[in-house]
Amino acid sequence: MAKILITNDDGYRAKGLKNLIEFVKPFGEIVAISSETEMSGTGHAVTIKNPLRLRQHNDCGESIYVSSGTPADNVKLAVNCLFDSEPDLILSGINHGSNTSCNVFYSGTLAAVIEGAMLGIPSIGFSVDSYYHDFDFSILRDYITHIVNRAIEYIATNNRNMCLNVNFPAIANPKGIKVCRMAKAKWVERFEKRIDPHGYPYYWLDGEFVFTDVGDDSDEYWVKQGYVAITPLSLDMTDYALMSQLKAWEL
Amino acid sequence: MAKILITNDDGYRAKGLKNLIEFVKPFGEIVAISSETEMSGTGHAVTIKNPLRLRQHNDCGESIYVSSGTPADNVKLAVNCLFDSEPDLILSGINHGSNTSCNVFYSGTLAAVIEGAMLGIPSIGFSVDSYYHDFDFSILRDYITHIVNRAIEYIATNNRNMCLNVNFPAIANPKGIKVCRMAKAKWVERFEKRIDPHGYPYYWLDGEFVFTDVGDDSDEYWVKQGYVAITPLSLDMTDYALMSQLKAWEL
Repeated sequence: MAKILITNDDGYRAKGLKNLIEFVKPFGEIVAISSETEMSGTGHAVTIKNPLRLRQHNDCGESIYVSSGTPADNVKLAVNCLFDSEPDLILSGINHGSNTSCNVFYSGTLAAVIEGAMLGIPSIGFSVDSYYHDFDFSILRDYITHIVNRAIEYIATNNRNMCLNVNFPAIANPKGIKVCRMAKAKWVERFEKRIDPHGYPYYWLDGEFVFTDVGDDSDEYWVKQGYVAITPLSLDMTDYALMSQLKAWEL
Repeated sequence: MAKILITNDDGYRAKGLKNLIEFVKPFGEIVAISSETEMSGTGHAVTIKNPLRLRQHNDCGESIYVSSGTPADNVKLAVNCLFDSEPDLILSGINHGSNTSCNVFYSGTLAAVIEGAMLGIPSIGFSVDSYYHDFDFSILRDYITHIVNRAIEYIATNNRNMCLNVNFPAIANPKGIKVCRMAKAKWVERFEKRIDPHGYPYYWLDGEFVFTDVGDDSDEYWVKQGYVAITPLSLDMTDYALMSQLKAWEL
C-alpha cells in the first residue's frame, strides 16, 4: 500500500480535492492537506515572515489538515510534520481550470507538485479545463486511477524523479492520453483602471491567454483536441541553447 | 537609448533597487516599479482576487512607482500602464541573497524576470550572496554595467529570447564571470512548533539549503568559488528525457 499526500490550491472545501481523495483511496494510506482559502495564482509563494497554523477538519468521515499557508507551504508542512517517513507519491488537484503551458508558473496546484519533486518525491498535478463550479469530476475517475496506477508501477522499478502535469479536457469521454511538451503561450494583460468612492484609482488585472505555439505536440494543443495531456516537468530550467550563445559573449 | 524597466522583490525602499537604477541610468530611459512591502519568497504569485493600487514615490530626484502587488504583478502593470511601447529590457534586483539553483522557484526577483521573458522582453535578474543589510552594492557596478552592455548589444542583432539569472559572490573582487547551468539543490525544512499565549500551536518554517550537485559547472558552485554566475533560464520546463520514458507507459 502506498502512502500518498494529496493537496490542491483551491482550498479545503474544493470539490476537486474531495473527489481526488475518493478516487485514490484504494491505493493506500492517504493524508490530505489544503489551505483555509483559495490559493489560485499564488505560484510558488512560501510563508517566511509569519508562522503557519494547522488544524484538522473532519467532513463525512474524511479528515483533511487545513493550514494558513500556501500550496508550497502545505507540501513542506505535510512532508515534515504529518508523515513518519516520506510519502511515496504526492498528488495535487483536481484543479478547476487548465494548467497547460505557462500557467505552470502561476499555478498553486503545480507549485505543490514542483515542491514535492524538489523534495525527491514523485508528484503529479491534475487539472481540468473547466471553471464550472459544479463540474462533474467523476468523469475523470478512470483516467486518474489509471495514471496513478502506472505511476506507482513506474516508481517501484525506476528512479523517483517524476514531476507530471496532467490536464483534462472538460468532456465525459476524452479521446485518449497524449504525452506532451509544455506549449508556448502567454497572457496578454489588460488593466482596467477604476476610481474608488474616495476618488482614488485602482487597477484590476485581467488578461487573455494567447496561444503562440504552432506545433501539434503540446499540452494546450491536445487538451483543446479533447485528449488528456501529460506533460513531464523538469526542475532544471537552464536554457542550454542560450548558454552556448552566452559563452560567445565577451565576458 | 534603451527603455529599461527596473524592478525587484525587496520593496521600493531597498538599497539594491536604488543602486541598480543608479548603475543603469546611463543606458537610457529608466522606469522603476516596486512593491510597498518586501516580497521575498512570493514566487510567481499574481493578484487576481483584489485590485492593485499604484502610486509614485519621489526620493532624491528619483521617481519610483510603488504598487500593492507582487513582483510578477509589477512587471505586468508596468509594461501595460507605464510604457507607450514595450521596454527594451527588464532588470530585477539587486536582490539581497543569492538566487542560484532551486531558489529560482521561490524568488520574487526571478518571477519578475520570468514574467518579463514570458512577455517576450529580454530580462535579467541580479542577486548577491549576502543578507548583510548594509552591503556595499557599489562593488557590483562594473560587472552589472558590463553585463547590461553586452545584453543590449546581443538583443540588437539577435532574437529577444533572453531570461538571465545573474548571481554575485559577496566579495569586492570576483574572480571573473562563468556561464552556468542551474545547480541541483533543495531546501530541507524543519518546522519549529511553538505554543501561542492562548495555548494554540503555530509553526515556523525554517530550512537548510542542501547542495546535492556534484558538477563543477553550476551557478551555486561558481558563486561559492568567488565567480559571477550567469544562468540562462528556459520558459519550457518540459522534461524531455522523462517524456520518452512516459511514452513507453501503457497509456
